[in-house]
Amino acid sequence: MAEYKIPFSVRSHHYNEEEIQLVVECMRKSNSLTQGESLLELEDKFARYVGVEHAFGISNATSGLELAAQLCQLVPGDEVVVPGHTFTSSAYPFAKQSANLVWADIDSETRVVSAEQLEKCVTKNTKVIVVPHLYGYAADMPEIMELATSMNVLVVEDVAQAIGVEVDSQMAGSYGDIAVFSFHAHKNITTLGEGGMIVVKSEKYANVLPMLRHNGHCDFQFERNNYWVPAMGNVDFPNIDGTSLWPNNYCIGEAQCALASKLLERVDSINSTKRERALRIIDKLVEYPELRFHRVSNRRHNYHLLAASLADGKRDNFISRMAKQYGIQCAVQYYPLYRYPFYEKIGFSDADCPNTDKYFDNMVSFPFGHSLTDTELNTITTSTISVLDSLRD
Amino acid sequence: MAEYKIPFSVRSHHYNEEEIQLVVECMRKSNSLTQGESLLELEDKFARYVGVEHAFGISNATSGLELAAQLCQLVPGDEVVVPGHTFTSSAYPFAKQSANLVWADIDSETRVVSAEQLEKCVTKNTKVIVVPHLYGYAADMPEIMELATSMNVLVVEDVAQAIGVEVDSQMAGSYGDIAVFSFHAHKNITTLGEGGMIVVKSEKYANVLPMLRHNGHCDFQFERNNYWVPAMGNVDFPNIDGTSLWPNNYCIGEAQCALASKLLERVDSINSTKRERALRIIDKLVEYPELRFHRVSNRRHNYHLLAASLADGKRDNFISRMAKQYGIQCAVQYYPLYRYPFYEKIGFSDADCPNTDKYFDNMVSFPFGHSLTDTELNTITTSTISVLDSLRD
Repeated sequence: MAEYKIPFSVRSHHYNEEEIQLVVECMRKSNSLTQGESLLELEDKFARYVGVEHAFGISNATSGLELAAQLCQLVPGDEVVVPGHTFTSSAYPFAKQSANLVWADIDSETRVVSAEQLEKCVTKNTKVIVVPHLYGYAADMPEIMELATSMNVLVVEDVAQAIGVEVDSQMAGSYGDIAVFSFHAHKNITTLGEGGMIVVKSEKYANVLPMLRHNGHCDFQFERNNYWVPAMGNVDFPNIDGTSLWPNNYCIGEAQCALASKLLERVDSINSTKRERALRIIDKLVEYPELRFHRVSNRRHNYHLLAASLADGKRDNFISRMAKQYGIQCAVQYYPLYRYPFYEKIGFSDADCPNTDKYFDNMVSFPFGHSLTDTELNTITTSTISVLDSLRD
Repeated sequence: MAEYKIPFSVRSHHYNEEEIQLVVECMRKSNSLTQGESLLELEDKFARYVGVEHAFGISNATSGLELAAQLCQLVPGDEVVVPGHTFTSSAYPFAKQSANLVWADIDSETRVVSAEQLEKCVTKNTKVIVVPHLYGYAADMPEIMELATSMNVLVVEDVAQAIGVEVDSQMAGSYGDIAVFSFHAHKNITTLGEGGMIVVKSEKYANVLPMLRHNGHCDFQFERNNYWVPAMGNVDFPNIDGTSLWPNNYCIGEAQCALASKLLERVDSINSTKRERALRIIDKLVEYPELRFHRVSNRRHNYHLLAASLADGKRDNFISRMAKQYGIQCAVQYYPLYRYPFYEKIGFSDADCPNTDKYFDNMVSFPFGHSLTDTELNTITTSTISVLDSLRD
C-alpha cells in the first residue's frame, strides 16, 4: 500500500514534556513498577473524574469487556443485546461467556443505539444491554437506563471512545452497571499505546475485581501470626453470589498509570480541541450537504472520530480520490459485526439492522487524531471540497 | 506491616540512561505506539536470542500461558502434568481450558521437576507437561523431551523466571513445543512492570498466534480492489486443525517492546552478575550447611531468586529474626498449589509430592533483585550469619 501524506491509523496525541518526565521519573524511582501506588492513585482519580465509586486499571478495554462479561454471570440461553455497528470487542467477550448475541440497530442520525432501537430487541431472555458510545458520542443513557430498569437487565457501557463526554451533565460511564474505558493508542488519551479502566457501580462487583484481574490473588480470611504462614498470600476463586469466576491477568504497569493520572488533567482540553476542530471542518463543508456529519456542539461528543456519510454511490469514489489525488487515507469503519465470518460461525449472522447496513455502506471516516496540525486539517478540508466538487460534475 | 530496610518485593533492576532515552524517544516519535515496528523488531530479536523460529510479544506471562493452554486444544479428560511447586499461573490456565491437573513432585536438590518425577505422573490421558524453570534454573530438558516424545505429549516450558539460561548449550524455551517468558517487574529484565513473550516451534501455532493475541483480526482471504471493501480488515476465529479458538486481547505497547529489545543486549550481563553474587553469598555461608542452597556456577542458573532450605524447624525463627533484628524481609515462596482453596474447589487438592511439601515447609527466599547494592547484599550475608549463629545456641 502506498504511503499516505495523512494516514488514518496513527497515535492520537503527542506527549508534553511534563508527561514524558513523569514516565522518566517512574523508570528511575518506582519501587514496584506494577501494582503499586500509581495504580491506586489513578483508580481514585479516575473514579472521581467519571463520578463513580469504583474504578480499576486494566491492560486494555477488551480485557475490561471480558471482565464485564464475566461479572454479568451469563448462562446459556441468556441474550445480550449489542449494536451491529461497533468494534468487535463490544460483542465477542459476551459470546465467549455463552451469550446469544442479539443485534440492535443504530439511530440514523446519531449512529449509536437508542432506547427505541434497543426496546425492539429486549426479550424475557435478555440479561445485558451493551451500549457503545461510538465515535465519542454518548448514547441516550437516561432513556436507556429507564428501559433497562423496567426490563430488569444489566447495562454495560462501552466508553472506549468516549472518555469525558456527558449526557444531562452526567458522565458517560457513570450510568450503567459496568463501564469500560480505553487508553489505546488511537484514543483521546493513551497510556503508551495500551491500557484501560473498568468502573462498576455495585460493591459486589468491586469486591471481586482485584482478584478477577490478578490471578485470584487475595488475603487469607484469618489472622496470621507470621506473614509467610501458611503462605505469603492466598489464591482463590473470585465469587459473586455463590458463583466462582475464573481469574485472569489483566494488570497495567505503574508508568502507564502515572501517565493516565496526568493525562486526566488535560483530557477535557483534548476533547474540547477535537470538538472545536470537528465543528470548524463540518461548518466549512456546510455547502456540501451530501456529506452528512453528526454535528454536536457540546460535551456530549468528544469527536474521537470524525465520520460522515456520502450517499448515492459516491462514497467509494470519494475515498479513492482522497487517497490518490491528495494522499489522505480515509477509512470505512465498523463493518456490521453480523457480516464477519467470526459471528457467522457462532450462529449470529442474522440481523435486522437497516440503519446499520445503510450507514456502513455509505460511511467515511476522516483521519482525525489530536496530533494532526492545523495545516493537515486544512488540507483535509480543502481536499474534501475539491473531491466533492469533482463528484458533482 | 513494618517497613523493611531490605524489602522482598521490589522491582528487579534499574534502567540506564540509554534505556530511559529509548522510552522517551518512543513517546516522542512512535507513529503507532502499539502493534508497530518495535514489536516486530523485538519478536525477531527475541526469537534469535532464544534460538527459535517464532516469538510473539504479549501483555504478560500469564496471558502467554493462557494462550499456551488454548494452543494445546484440551478436551475434558485430558490430563496436564504440572509441578505443585510453582506460581499459580503455571497451572490455572490449563484448568480453565478443562484439563485435569496432575501434580508432579520436584527434585529435592534442584527444586524443579525432573524426567524421573514427571514419568510417574504421565498416563495415556496426559496431553501436556508444564515445566517451570523455577528460581531461574533450567530443568533437565533433554531428558524431559525424550520422555515427552516417547509418550507423545506436548511440552510447555514456563520460562517466566529463566530468561537466558541454558542446558547443553541450548536455551531454556527452545526445547518445548511452546514456551512463555515474563518481563514482569520482578524478573531479570522488565518492560515497565508488565510484559511477556510466547515462543512456539510449529508453523501451525505461529500461524494462529497473531489472531489469538489480537481479537481475531486477520486479512481477507481474497484480493480486494479497494482497501476498505468489504471492510478495512477481517475478524475470524483462529483455527488449528479444524478447531476454532476464542481470541483475546493480549497486546503489548511499542515503548515496552523497544525497551525489551534494548534489555536483551544486557540480559546476559544481568544474569552473570546475579549468578556471581549468588555464588559469593553461598560461598560465604559454606560453614553453615544447615542453610542448603542450590549451587550452580554456570549458565544453567540465572539466580532470578536466591532460595535455600533450613531444616529442623529453624526456618520460622530465622525469618522472624531476619525481619525483627535486621529489617530484612525474607519470603517463603510457592505454596504447594494443591493446598490453595482455589485448586481444592476444582477438585485438585490431592497430591503425592513429599519433596514439594518438605521443601516448601523449610524454604526461605532472600531479597535478591539486581538493583540491590553490594552493601545491601553484604548486610544480607552478615545478618544471615548472625541469625544462624544465634539459632545454633
